[in-house]
Amino acid sequence: MPVPKANLYPDFNIVRLSHVELGVTNLAASRKFYADVLGLQVTDETATHIYLRAMEERGHHCMVLSKQDRPTVGALSFKVYSEVDLDAAQKWFETRGRPCAFGERPYQARTLHTSDLHGVPLEFYFQIDRLKPIHQRYELYRGVKPLRIDHFNCFSEDVDAAVAFYNDMGFRVTEYTEDEATGRLWAAWLHRKGGVHDIAFTNGSGPRLHHTAFWVPTPLNIIDLLDLMATTGYLANIERGPGRHGISNAFFLYVRDPDGHRIEIYCSDYQTVDPDLEPIKWGLKDPQRQTLWGMPAPKSWFEEGSLFEGVAPRPPALKSQPIIAP
Amino acid sequence: MPVPKANLYPDFNIVRLSHVELGVTNLAASRKFYADVLGLQVTDETATHIYLRAMEERGHHCMVLSKQDRPTVGALSFKVYSEVDLDAAQKWFETRGRPCAFGERPYQARTLHTSDLHGVPLEFYFQIDRLKPIHQRYELYRGVKPLRIDHFNCFSEDVDAAVAFYNDMGFRVTEYTEDEATGRLWAAWLHRKGGVHDIAFTNGSGPRLHHTAFWVPTPLNIIDLLDLMATTGYLANIERGPGRHGISNAFFLYVRDPDGHRIEIYCSDYQTVDPDLEPIKWGLKDPQRQTLWGMPAPKSWFEEGSLFEGVAPRPPALKSQPIIAP
Amino acid sequence: MPVPKANLYPDFNIVRLSHVELGVTNLAASRKFYADVLGLQVTDETATHIYLRAMEERGHHCMVLSKQDRPTVGALSFKVYSEVDLDAAQKWFETRGRPCAFGERPYQARTLHTSDLHGVPLEFYFQIDRLKPIHQRYELYRGVKPLRIDHFNCFSEDVDAAVAFYNDMGFRVTEYTEDEATGRLWAAWLHRKGGVHDIAFTNGSGPRLHHTAFWVPTPLNIIDLLDLMATTGYLANIERGPGRHGISNAFFLYVRDPDGHRIEIYCSDYQTVDPDLEPIKWGLKDPQRQTLWGMPAPKSWFEEGSLFEGVAPRPPALKSQPIIAP
Amino acid sequence: MPVPKANLYPDFNIVRLSHVELGVTNLAASRKFYADVLGLQVTDETATHIYLRAMEERGHHCMVLSKQDRPTVGALSFKVYSEVDLDAAQKWFETRGRPCAFGERPYQARTLHTSDLHGVPLEFYFQIDRLKPIHQRYELYRGVKPLRIDHFNCFSEDVDAAVAFYNDMGFRVTEYTEDEATGRLWAAWLHRKGGVHDIAFTNGSGPRLHHTAFWVPTPLNIIDLLDLMATTGYLANIERGPGRHGISNAFFLYVRDPDGHRIEIYCSDYQTVDPDLEPIKWGLKDPQRQTLWGMPAPKSWFEEGSLFEGVAPRPPALKSQPIIAP
Repeated sequence: MPVPKANLYPDFNIVRLSHVELGVTNLAASRKFYADVLGLQVTDETATHIYLRAMEERGHHCMVLSKQDRPTVGALSFKVYSEVDLDAAQKWFETRGRPCAFGERPYQARTLHTSDLHGVPLEFYFQIDRLKPIHQRYELYRGVKPLRIDHFNCFSEDVDAAVAFYNDMGFRVTEYTEDEATGRLWAAWLHRKGGVHDIAFTNGSGPRLHHTAFWVPTPLNIIDLLDLMATTGYLANIERGPGRHGISNAFFLYVRDPDGHRIEIYCSDYQTVDPDLEPIKWGLKDPQRQTLWGMPAPKSWFEEGSLFEGVAPRPPALKSQPIIAP
Repeated sequence: MPVPKANLYPDFNIVRLSHVELGVTNLAASRKFYADVLGLQVTDETATHIYLRAMEERGHHCMVLSKQDRPTVGALSFKVYSEVDLDAAQKWFETRGRPCAFGERPYQARTLHTSDLHGVPLEFYFQIDRLKPIHQRYELYRGVKPLRIDHFNCFSEDVDAAVAFYNDMGFRVTEYTEDEATGRLWAAWLHRKGGVHDIAFTNGSGPRLHHTAFWVPTPLNIIDLLDLMATTGYLANIERGPGRHGISNAFFLYVRDPDGHRIEIYCSDYQTVDPDLEPIKWGLKDPQRQTLWGMPAPKSWFEEGSLFEGVAPRPPALKSQPIIAP
Repeated sequence: MPVPKANLYPDFNIVRLSHVELGVTNLAASRKFYADVLGLQVTDETATHIYLRAMEERGHHCMVLSKQDRPTVGALSFKVYSEVDLDAAQKWFETRGRPCAFGERPYQARTLHTSDLHGVPLEFYFQIDRLKPIHQRYELYRGVKPLRIDHFNCFSEDVDAAVAFYNDMGFRVTEYTEDEATGRLWAAWLHRKGGVHDIAFTNGSGPRLHHTAFWVPTPLNIIDLLDLMATTGYLANIERGPGRHGISNAFFLYVRDPDGHRIEIYCSDYQTVDPDLEPIKWGLKDPQRQTLWGMPAPKSWFEEGSLFEGVAPRPPALKSQPIIAP
Repeated sequence: MPVPKANLYPDFNIVRLSHVELGVTNLAASRKFYADVLGLQVTDETATHIYLRAMEERGHHCMVLSKQDRPTVGALSFKVYSEVDLDAAQKWFETRGRPCAFGERPYQARTLHTSDLHGVPLEFYFQIDRLKPIHQRYELYRGVKPLRIDHFNCFSEDVDAAVAFYNDMGFRVTEYTEDEATGRLWAAWLHRKGGVHDIAFTNGSGPRLHHTAFWVPTPLNIIDLLDLMATTGYLANIERGPGRHGISNAFFLYVRDPDGHRIEIYCSDYQTVDPDLEPIKWGLKDPQRQTLWGMPAPKSWFEEGSLFEGVAPRPPALKSQPIIAP
């Protein structure tokens, strides 16, 4: 079995994924997409940045839009349990030869900047500005009614290596895809916060960000978003779905933002807090792996992703391919 | 404009579509599909026939499964307002040169057997055995929780001619597709009972039955059915959807029964009782005509249909084609 | 059995209920309630009137708000099939000694003004301005996403007499409540358009308007409205529900507008187009009659109603009372 | 502020609530209620015990029904992270003068039996038999489609003391009700697993178990359960709801089992994994505290609870009362 044993006592305690910074070429167009169509709430904005949170979040933001010349992705940000964990994280990354620096971020206390084994920029913080709850201000709910950021999904040129790295950091594998031919990992889903994943890795030219996902209450909210996007000029931004994943059991929809960054709308996965939760294995050729039901994913879904700023992707070692829509 | 003026004072009064008889090759397999998976209620069964009704229907059946050597379709059955309308119907069909006969059907009073301009076998009755309501016996609800039969959809070799024929019979067009190149009708939806349609015609090798549709309460029931079919051996029976039609605005799913007969699960169309309701026009090349959002329909959906017993289909005069999934 | 035999060939053809004029004391407050909270669309407004339609309606309005010194109700308006039916309606009402006059209404062609046996002001028209469809303009959906006006419900001082009058007009009883002690009708639901009712009568000081109902897609829309009202200052306007009626099987919610006019939000009743549909009988003391499940209705729900302009209510002959919440 | 500072580094690591044993007087009647009506899955049964799990659980059971002469509650059971935590738990409870013993339980490894400050019997285990996933076996879903056990709620004669005790154990307060008159806690919600609560305490004659809650996917599942219970002889078992709690923001329903044990059906609360999550304060007299919308809770809901075996309840010190339905 290709999945490493869970590290139940990691060197530092990551609570959950927190936020991502997306470089976008047109702030106004992106604001319209994320705030008016998806329904995220703007918590601050400047000439160059827009900060957004979802409806049940009290941290200052789960997404930062940053004006750039071309679409890029900044760091994937994670919240750690306490400041002690920040220092332990620094030590952990330095031990593995990763560059570490502490720096400033608006609204955040002391923040560790580093990167993973393949160069994905990562940030860790323990404290961010807290905002008043809005989850019962129902007049603010719009679009797909996003409740919280749920996970990141990255293309990886070596999923086995990525899983080993993140597993050692304390992420626990909940489900995975094995390439039956080689016995290697083709994809894996790993969590910290008690859902199916905070981060996932899929075999492909990497590192690149495949998508950022938001959790919504019910499949009907996703159908509402489809109706809205299909009739307000965003039909071409609907890439895949709706459908149900075999992996995670989630009801899903994938849409593309005005710069092509991919967003997943996601609901109905399951609780994974048990430390002895057995990872679920799927074969790469199982047609119900990606899609319990629904159309196969289009080519773009398997091939396109967002570049991390300053990180050139490399082709994957593993050449196996899943089922792709013709 | 290719749609004829509605005939608001037809010669006889059709209330609604009522039922269809499907020839199936394996009664047990079909019973499992319609009763256990879709959730229709068996109201009677013999060695050769199974009678089914949906949850809010009080007429004895909306579908008859009949054991046959190969899949076929018997008559499309309609309920008329009173016995007087039966005799007026006979006169109407005889005037148009269609063969007419009164015959017996189990559970039905006097029944007119005839056929439409292209040979589709039709039946009209005014009285069928009435059963006790079961719409509040919630322990009986299963599968997709079908509430009532909603409509028939037929391939037609000449949609203009079919629409003229049914329009004269009192069916009213609610939406239609025009082939912009020729100005001819490519498809049309016509109603009697106050929804978007009791019957529709689509250009193609005809006459053949494209599908029979059932009305369900909400899109979530359709998602429940997808989950059930995808995990109980019926994955390959899911043909198209879920999605929302541009035409009719309905949320839909198409599935195939064990013999390949196509069933649509359908909800959320609109009320059409106004006699001055303006038909909505769609261009054949409008990508949101068939699919407001969702994957394009597969080839099978455009090409395959069920044969009416003893009626050989003819190729359509109109060669224009809509958008088909590759 | 106290329900008269359905009149299947009435003297004139009523298509459906159409709209109601509510006298309100503060147009701005009422606009906010009906347009911003409930989600009806404003189709026109003047200094004294606001016209509203629901999302799938193409007639100009289903509700008119009219500035008045005190809350009142104008006429209950119905659409007839054609101008011929208008003249037949006049004759029908005059035969019964009701005052008749043809008058002008904005956006409507020739309109008959009359009243029912108990003095309820009624209007009949055959033609109203038609507007472009908006049912697929999903960016306009708000609040409870009202799709169409569904029915009126009136207090009546003599339900037997009211049912006889409307039955003769062609309305057909779908369900009714019998006072077992006297064998008289305590309430009845009558339809023209193929749902459970266009109008209902309940025993009580009458005539008064108990409520006007709007049809919405699913129970979740009603829950959305409850969340919205409960957190935007409208908590006290929620009068009863949510629950499911035994009668009609509908999922319901009753709210009060700023002047106390009662609005029902309603979904999931059933189709009633069959002319031989048997009315369903309920006993007055059956606790599941009003409420299949949910709390019993409060006293206000049984006692309070809106006055028709210039019509003084009279106490009901029948003194029997249903179950009321303490 | 009456809420103690969260203990972020407790002496032992509780993962989540796990299961409860209910003493029932008629196993067959209880099996019907929990398995057929609610939809829990039977994982084992003997002449005296029935073991049940919810659809996404892989631990052997979340509820044990045990044949008894009268209704009682056995221990509230919690899963700890590892065997090391079991021993640390023993030490923690012994330090506080609570009786501790290790004993056997079917399907569980070494189990600590103890009790809380007020005598509530508690069990801690680190390992229970693991079963194959069934969350994608959709043909098994029934009733309300329960996904997992969510929380316990107990009457407590001294909520301040109970919160101090459990807070020290590592439970974190997410929301609480303060009695404004005395500044004391009237109720509190505390979690381990990242939702609003694993356990809650409400002022009242205690200790008694107020209810055990199950998490379901959407409000529509709760409406389905109401329809089912209302038409299959369980109308009187519906005690309160549906409604939305102010506290927790959850959509809820309370039902009583055949012995009167109370079960909450619960969905749509929020994620609470942040260690710096600020508890939300509610005033006891805030009408939207218990009920954001919906009818006030009935008297039985505030007064009735299940006795823990061999533990006599004592009246609460705090006499303040919330709003109760008349």
